[in-house]
Amino acid sequence: MNFKPVNFNEKFSKFDDLWSPKVIAEMNDYQFKTVKVQGDFVWHKHEDTDEVFIVLEGELIIEFRDGEVALKAGEMFVVPKNTEHKPYAKTQASLLLIEPRGVINTGDAKSEKTAENDVWI
Amino acid sequence: MNFKPVNFNEKFSKFDDLWSPKVIAEMNDYQFKTVKVQGDFVWHKHEDTDEVFIVLEGELIIEFRDGEVALKAGEMFVVPKNTEHKPYAKTQASLLLIEPRGVINTGDAKSEKTAENDVWI
Repeated sequence: MNFKPVNFNEKFSKFDDLWSPKVIAEMNDYQFKTVKVQGDFVWHKHEDTDEVFIVLEGELIIEFRDGEVALKAGEMFVVPKNTEHKPYAKTQASLLLIEPRGVINTGDAKSEKTAENDVWI
Repeated sequence: MNFKPVNFNEKFSKFDDLWSPKVIAEMNDYQFKTVKVQGDFVWHKHEDTDEVFIVLEGELIIEFRDGEVALKAGEMFVVPKNTEHKPYAKTQASLLLIEPRGVINTGDAKSEKTAENDVWI
């Protein structure tokens, strides 16, 4: 076994591109991904799975068709499966995403923001 | 939908008992649990699942039969399934655990530290 912890700040120091999740760990068939975000993402949903957002730095808004949730560092939210949502960050925020292996960042909405999947750092 | 974020500090303010995980959120069939720890836990393993430890405050040692890992705030570790481990914290630490619904804190080792399962706060 590799007895090295996964350090979030160290992982965030390794990339600067936005809206492009990087896998840092796997638990069973779930992945933990670090991602930096700023500005507006695209409306999308994940038909088969919930998705967890944990804010590690900054602030994140997740818009839904019937409301929104505002998250700051030290807060998390579970986006239910098959629920349209659009993340937004006024200034840069650093997030931890948790979702099953294979989930695409833009879900059902292929766009220029669709990132390569399963990229490890 | 409830548009309230889950705030880790708020959850930790609601309990003081040690080694007794409290569920704060569910994603598919996985649970997120806050737990406060101090001192020595029991050797145990979870035969069917990996287990994630994220340290939010303080420091945690996870001992294995062939080594150990030291985690501080902002770090995580995935304990592989079927691997004996024993968490230890010299001073009180606050952790986030992520594991499938139904996992018992002491795994295969029933003891006085076996906590009631699926307790939500």
